[in-house]
Amino acid sequence: MKTYRIAVIPGDGIGKEVVPAAIKVLDQAALLDGRFQFEWTIFPWGCEYYLETGKMMPDNGIELLKQYDQIFLGAVGMPNLVPDHVSLWGLLIKIRRELQQFINVRPAKLLQGLPSPLRQPNDFDFIVVRENSEGEYAESGGRIHSGQDEVAIQNAVFTRKGTERAMRYAFELAKTRNGHVTSATKSNGITYSMPFWDEVFTQVGKEYEEVGQASNHIDTLAAFLVMKPENFDVIVASNLFGDILTDLGGAIMGSIGIAPAANLNIEGLYPSMFEPVHGSAPDIAGQGIANPIGQIWTGKMMLDFLGYQDVGTRILNAIEQTLARGIKTPDLGGAATLQEVTDAIIDYLT
Amino acid sequence: MKTYRIAVIPGDGIGKEVVPAAIKVLDQAALLDGRFQFEWTIFPWGCEYYLETGKMMPDNGIELLKQYDQIFLGAVGMPNLVPDHVSLWGLLIKIRRELQQFINVRPAKLLQGLPSPLRQPNDFDFIVVRENSEGEYAESGGRIHSGQDEVAIQNAVFTRKGTERAMRYAFELAKTRNGHVTSATKSNGITYSMPFWDEVFTQVGKEYEEVGQASNHIDTLAAFLVMKPENFDVIVASNLFGDILTDLGGAIMGSIGIAPAANLNIEGLYPSMFEPVHGSAPDIAGQGIANPIGQIWTGKMMLDFLGYQDVGTRILNAIEQTLARGIKTPDLGGAATLQEVTDAIIDYLT
Ligand SMILES: CC(C)[C@H](C(=O)O)[C@@H](O)C(=O)O
Ligand SMILES: CC(C)[C@H](C(=O)O)[C@@H](O)C(=O)O
Repeated sequence: MKTYRIAVIPGDGIGKEVVPAAIKVLDQAALLDGRFQFEWTIFPWGCEYYLETGKMMPDNGIELLKQYDQIFLGAVGMPNLVPDHVSLWGLLIKIRRELQQFINVRPAKLLQGLPSPLRQPNDFDFIVVRENSEGEYAESGGRIHSGQDEVAIQNAVFTRKGTERAMRYAFELAKTRNGHVTSATKSNGITYSMPFWDEVFTQVGKEYEEVGQASNHIDTLAAFLVMKPENFDVIVASNLFGDILTDLGGAIMGSIGIAPAANLNIEGLYPSMFEPVHGSAPDIAGQGIANPIGQIWTGKMMLDFLGYQDVGTRILNAIEQTLARGIKTPDLGGAATLQEVTDAIIDYLT
Repeated sequence: MKTYRIAVIPGDGIGKEVVPAAIKVLDQAALLDGRFQFEWTIFPWGCEYYLETGKMMPDNGIELLKQYDQIFLGAVGMPNLVPDHVSLWGLLIKIRRELQQFINVRPAKLLQGLPSPLRQPNDFDFIVVRENSEGEYAESGGRIHSGQDEVAIQNAVFTRKGTERAMRYAFELAKTRNGHVTSATKSNGITYSMPFWDEVFTQVGKEYEEVGQASNHIDTLAAFLVMKPENFDVIVASNLFGDILTDLGGAIMGSIGIAPAANLNIEGLYPSMFEPVHGSAPDIAGQGIANPIGQIWTGKMMLDFLGYQDVGTRILNAIEQTLARGIKTPDLGGAATLQEVTDAIIDYLT
């Protein structure tokens, strides 16, 4: 039997509640399947750790993480006590970059039992492939002058390597799905990076003639996700555009609280990191009412990545059955606890 | 009686149909009001002009426009014949910049008679104030190396003057409305321009203590426009973020085809330009079925800006009554022609 060694960072707030719940589901799914098992190692890093030590993770944190097969993260942040840029750049973004998790993948799908805020949603099911390491998030820029004359400059940096990598991943993914890739651009307004992005898309697209290809400006594309989300299969986007489109994906599903995400090291050189889109929600932490679905679905993405798509599908089906039975936490309008939702999902696994 | 001299640029495609329709409505509204009249001067600039002359407008175009009180623009673009960057940067963006139309204003509002794609929309009514001249649209950047090593760099440039101006306009506007401003930021991911943006927002906000203030990251904010658009009054955003949020605003209203916009020279030094959000829609041009509402609502914004808010309100009411009666063009699921919709709006003016 194969054993996967997983580094677990529950993080802050509800992260500490939903991660154990998801681990229970994943262990049960593994047990039922019989081909593999997990060995979980908990790292208590995050904002509490920072308040004690002045660091979000120890200096050798990245080295430690490299020894594991994958990373399973909850949520990080204590906005009132630790500034966002500290908690993010000291942990989440640091791991994404140092472990070369160049690709961020986030699905959006109309789930049975979860009402979308859209009036007449057709059955949508798309995946956003987001470039995860450069672009608009490049830490490059500065300021000049002060007072009334102050100017801030931010440099977005797009490399051909990084751009091609994201696009190639998107095309490969589309081949396993409905065979269509939409590129998010804004070359009509942003005149250096985005025409470059378009060029690379056209060029990589030539290697994938069997895959349908389209390009939409980000403003139009955002509107399309509200008006006709069913038209999309795979969307490839820059770091910033991917960030925006995936929150929109969560919104049209009916809740950002359930959206999963994967930060992939596609070469397999270092571990990938699986983390839900939602935050640490300090306002509801510790009450046993946090919604575990985002974390559990994130676990499903880890299974998919490890090659157990069939087991992943089982988990998603169990989530849908639980929702369809009305077993929902308060954020989804239900009255169930975290424990009840978790137990129901485990029941439906069998 | 006051006479306003308006430079009219119908542009391309349906622009040539909806502009005359909107002019009829505006003339009728002026006649009914009696305090003012319009004198319209048509400039046949745009892509056809470009195909004949190699320019989107004559060399002295900007000087000509300066002689008018305001500019009323239809839509510009013939994507199959003229590259987007030529048609945009040679006319639309050129006018925005050279006539110092630093502020772009776009309302989004749940209209009677127009079904939103949202299931349970509460009565939303917000305005996006978009910085219109700099930020992510700065024409600054370049490339280095070629082939596999190629790197494209885009510089976003935020000046204190430009940023403050947009924010101050937003706060002043909020004082005439529901007294709340939300700033669109992304300072957790974009580490030079957006912290600067936040600083300026906090600083300008101190001058407006009577106005409610909040800051949301653009990803969250985009999701909020789908989940609870009724929570917003005035949103102030950078050039790119404003672009995205206003298309989303159109989407949740039920159609980008009806959304209006104003490019304001708030100092009144040069004319402002009023243009709907929609494009030239070459596919349906010339058939008499284009939806004139975006252009007519844009005319209402011009009236507001000229100080005739009461007349503007009358026009918006007439639009809503027309929609509520089901008199709609095919893009909104109706069977009415452009002419029928225009006539109905004129009828309801009285
Ligand atoms: C055409 C494009 C450059 C333009 C913009 O992004 O400003 C348009 O989307 C708009 O919003 O007016
Ligand atoms: C917290 C923030 C920096 C982050 C991002 O924009 O990458 C988050 O929004 C996400 O999408 O994971």
